Amino acid sequence: MNLKQHIEVMLPAIEKELQKQVARLDADNTRHFHEMLTYHMGWTGEGAGREATGKRIRPLIVLLATASTGADWQPSLPAAAAVELVHNFSLVHDDVQDNSDKRRGRPTVWAKWGVPMAINVGDALFVISNQAMMDLVRSHPAAVVVEAAKILHDTCLSLTRGQYLDMSYEERNDLSLEDYWPMVGGKTSALLSACTHIGALLGNAGKEEQEAYREFGYHLGLAFQVQDDILGIWGDEAITGKSAASDLVEGKNSLPVLYGLGKHGKFAERWKQGPIKVNEVKTVSALLETEGGKSYAEAISERETGIALEYLDNANPRGAAGESMLELANMLLKRSQ
Amino acid sequence: MNLKQHIEVMLPAIEKELQKQVARLDADNTRHFHEMLTYHMGWTGEGAGREATGKRIRPLIVLLATASTGADWQPSLPAAAAVELVHNFSLVHDDVQDNSDKRRGRPTVWAKWGVPMAINVGDALFVISNQAMMDLVRSHPAAVVVEAAKILHDTCLSLTRGQYLDMSYEERNDLSLEDYWPMVGGKTSALLSACTHIGALLGNAGKEEQEAYREFGYHLGLAFQVQDDILGIWGDEAITGKSAASDLVEGKNSLPVLYGLGKHGKFAERWKQGPIKVNEVKTVSALLETEGGKSYAEAISERETGIALEYLDNANPRGAAGESMLELANMLLKRSQ
Repeated sequence: MNLKQHIEVMLPAIEKELQKQVARLDADNTRHFHEMLTYHMGWTGEGAGREATGKRIRPLIVLLATASTGADWQPSLPAAAAVELVHNFSLVHDDVQDNSDKRRGRPTVWAKWGVPMAINVGDALFVISNQAMMDLVRSHPAAVVVEAAKILHDTCLSLTRGQYLDMSYEERNDLSLEDYWPMVGGKTSALLSACTHIGALLGNAGKEEQEAYREFGYHLGLAFQVQDDILGIWGDEAITGKSAASDLVEGKNSLPVLYGLGKHGKFAERWKQGPIKVNEVKTVSALLETEGGKSYAEAISERETGIALEYLDNANPRGAAGESMLELANMLLKRSQ
Repeated sequence: MNLKQHIEVMLPAIEKELQKQVARLDADNTRHFHEMLTYHMGWTGEGAGREATGKRIRPLIVLLATASTGADWQPSLPAAAAVELVHNFSLVHDDVQDNSDKRRGRPTVWAKWGVPMAINVGDALFVISNQAMMDLVRSHPAAVVVEAAKILHDTCLSLTRGQYLDMSYEERNDLSLEDYWPMVGGKTSALLSACTHIGALLGNAGKEEQEAYREFGYHLGLAFQVQDDILGIWGDEAITGKSAASDLVEGKNSLPVLYGLGKHGKFAERWKQGPIKVNEVKTVSALLETEGGKSYAEAISERETGIALEYLDNANPRGAAGESMLELANMLLKRSQ
């Protein structure tokens, strides 16, 4: 079994588990509420389908981590659903916080049903994520379920920390490189490390192996995020699907930008004068590239990729699932989109 | 030990546990974030103190329930903190959803720091509540912790259901009495039943006793909510501390109002014409009283009080703590404020 075959078997199982979990709200007097959740998950409404669900990378990583320890991946399905629900809860609230009215090409939940309902939809996805975790008790000892839940809860607190830092940075004019890591560590990396850690724990891996899986996920997250930052400024619009350099226009405090600010050069001067306009993007991104922002970020991404793959090697992933995990990591890290 | 003495011992322990839990965010780069939580909890900022913390009724009920089973209440402290954190998470999000800029006489979190930060503060309180529950594992078997966590998660999903119904009712003009119970059952009652249920579970009560405690909390919540509805229309402003009849002006779908709407009389006619103005309150509340809204709600409150006290009796609460639990229930149910 290669990665493609693993995905073909695992994705439908993930989707089924997610639908079962979300169906907790499928009752007569909360039908419309349930619909808001199924819309956000990409199953219903205009534009429903694979484009709208997202790639389900996080639950796939949970299942592959369990399988790579040599255990059956099926009993990990509730945990896989739980991390995907956490991810989606944070997206629904993020969209309100960032005032984003589009997500994966469709109107966001708040854009369709208003902010109060969207807050409640995010809360419900979060609650259901917790409920999914407790379902693990059907196939795992309660002590393991508590340990897995603790990992996920700690991760969720990191998410709120990362979100706080991200929002508080918007008002600051004195940011530098060192402000980047706590923010990113709390967002993308925390959740990916929970995926690999919980997956390994449920596969009954030893403490050292679990730790290697956790570190693998963490650095995979960092490398992935830095690549995303690079693509957000210099990516090919036709490949990424986002308007090129939208991160500059949105004033996102990405790694290249924070590097550029630390240089106190012409880029920093322009950045501090206020929002970059669309017609300036080409000049400003070229300026940032000249001042070293792109090559710095590429070096960091390469470094983190190397660390991630070393930890994966230490984790001693087994069999076809181990191969698929490596393939998935490589795909995520060398992606052009 | 009577109720007053129980409160004097338990309240400081609850407050200490809450502060310890919330301190998870007390780090250099999240100090300001931590401050937002401590402000909401009533510990810091202008107006901090007993008035700002609220009465901590819910955690008190958890501890009294455990103690009434004959067990030590101290090991239940993390659960007591968890339910209070859930309550506070829901208040922070409610205030955003209802656009309320004051809570317990102080500016709400969103009014001070904006909606995006307030959403994140609520999320963090919710996460910390989950973390607190897992701390139970220090003094309880993991299987019991999982059971307690499941009860709390189910309750949280009920809260989002109740919140959904409450918000969706704002747009409806065809409400009747039967729409009241699912909404109220999901809000006040669900959380109070979790308090008594979890308290009894942690005290190692038998299944039947647990069930009696759960039902006691549920009907206590209903009786309490209906009383609140009555006071919101006919309460003495000097005693309740809210402006009299503010519920009518705010258009709250309380039990007396839904009863009145079902009568299709003059009250219903006026209600459907649009918001009640402050200078109409006296006339409209008199109209609703004449049409039977007040006496109906009083009868329901009395019925639910009776059911609650019968379940408490079935639960066989023991010792001084059992007496205090009855005293607290009576205090809540016969309150004039």
